[in-house]
Amino acid sequence: MKFIAQIDVMPKKEILDPQGKAVTGSMKNIGLSEITNVRVGKHISLEVEAATEVEASEKVDRACKQLLANLIMESYEFKIAAV
Amino acid sequence: MKFIAQIDVMPKKEILDPQGKAVTGSMKNIGLSEITNVRVGKHISLEVEAATEVEASEKVDRACKQLLANLIMESYEFKIAAV
Repeated sequence: MKFIAQIDVMPKKEILDPQGKAVTGSMKNIGLSEITNVRVGKHISLEVEAATEVEASEKVDRACKQLLANLIMESYEFKIAAV
Repeated sequence: MKFIAQIDVMPKKEILDPQGKAVTGSMKNIGLSEITNVRVGKHISLEVEAATEVEASEKVDRACKQLLANLIMESYEFKIAAV
């Protein structure tokens, strides 16, 4: 079966996010000072071939741990859906 | 009221995504050749102060159009929830 995973990789809360800080500052310049606390991370979509949803989830989890997220600075979460 | 928006900005389907292609290739090297069609975009979380959810949604939409997404190459979607 084929599954699609939607993964979010975000800088951990205790880590300073300079890109997010810069975007928060730019919001003021376009008249959107109501927008604050911007944090910028990665969104990754991928397809995975697996027998079951549990197996697909394990594969995606391994991909996150070994390749997609830097666990020292980033946390990740994902959702999986059958195609 | 304060709302939190979760925004995904992704390269459009018809646009080549070299970062995603590179990650797809790397999956093979870590023994996850079942993972294909990786696409890499941005995930942005932010807080927005607004009277209603509709108003918050309009502000976030404007932020996406004017600052967060390059509409020629990227598409975006977001969800809003009251804090």
